[in-house]
Amino acid sequence: MSNEELAYIAGFLDGDGCVMAQLVRRKDYIYGYQVRTSIVFYQKKRNQEILHWLKSQLKLGYIRHRNDDVTEYTIVGLREVQYVLRILLPFLRLKKRIAKEVIKLIDAHPKTMTPEKLVHLSRIVDETAKFNYSKKRTNTSATVCAYLKRANLIPVETEG
Amino acid sequence: MSNEELAYIAGFLDGDGCVMAQLVRRKDYIYGYQVRTSIVFYQKKRNQEILHWLKSQLKLGYIRHRNDDVTEYTIVGLREVQYVLRILLPFLRLKKRIAKEVIKLIDAHPKTMTPEKLVHLSRIVDETAKFNYSKKRTNTSATVCAYLKRANLIPVETEG
Repeated sequence: MSNEELAYIAGFLDGDGCVMAQLVRRKDYIYGYQVRTSIVFYQKKRNQEILHWLKSQLKLGYIRHRNDDVTEYTIVGLREVQYVLRILLPFLRLKKRIAKEVIKLIDAHPKTMTPEKLVHLSRIVDETAKFNYSKKRTNTSATVCAYLKRANLIPVETEG
Repeated sequence: MSNEELAYIAGFLDGDGCVMAQLVRRKDYIYGYQVRTSIVFYQKKRNQEILHWLKSQLKLGYIRHRNDDVTEYTIVGLREVQYVLRILLPFLRLKKRIAKEVIKLIDAHPKTMTPEKLVHLSRIVDETAKFNYSKKRTNTSATVCAYLKRANLIPVETEG
């Protein structure tokens, strides 16, 4: 991709898109939660062609049609999101800070997870959420900590 | 501005912005209606900094805060809109067609208006409205024609 194409995509993401990190409950995960990172572009279904163009450029992710006439182009996955954010970073403006935070989060994600590392990551996720002003977050670092304590995977701090 | 900056702004406009032409009732105009062209960028008020950056680059237009926590950066005026669309045109994708239509409309706008020319322009405005899927247009070429006929400025066609 040329710098002009990358700059265009960065502008499009700044205007319309979303960069986020979430804590997702996964019953098959030993520590109960997955750190999910994603980049999402939204357009009315009639404008979906631009999303297909974006996908043809970035060569990652998938497009889905929602029930409310909106089409979403989503890139998920730590490596995938890291790659896209790194190439867009020099051109991002509005979402430069969240992009940096999410790259930091992915850099901190270990190959082998431990309860302590998951708590550390979940706190970075909390930080990224501030940039998106999400009103109803189900899972926060507190949720993850509570789960790990209940499962006796991290020690319960003695109060007071 | 560099090509990268122009490409970024084009991406931002494609993702988030609006290019439009409207017929505006003007009681002080001899033919009753003005052709208004505008480019608008919208962001939540907390993200307004990016709109100030855009304005500093394009050096045109004004920023206003709406009551609903949205800040708008608007460029109005035939020459102003034509200039901005022309520099962004090579980089636009989603809004390239409406941009071309609006440039065509502005090119067709005469220094000295006549009723016939206004009818011609108002039909181009109707065409541009299709790109924006506006649901409630108050003034269409039909409104303008009806006005000009009532004012005896254009002949009423004999029916049937």
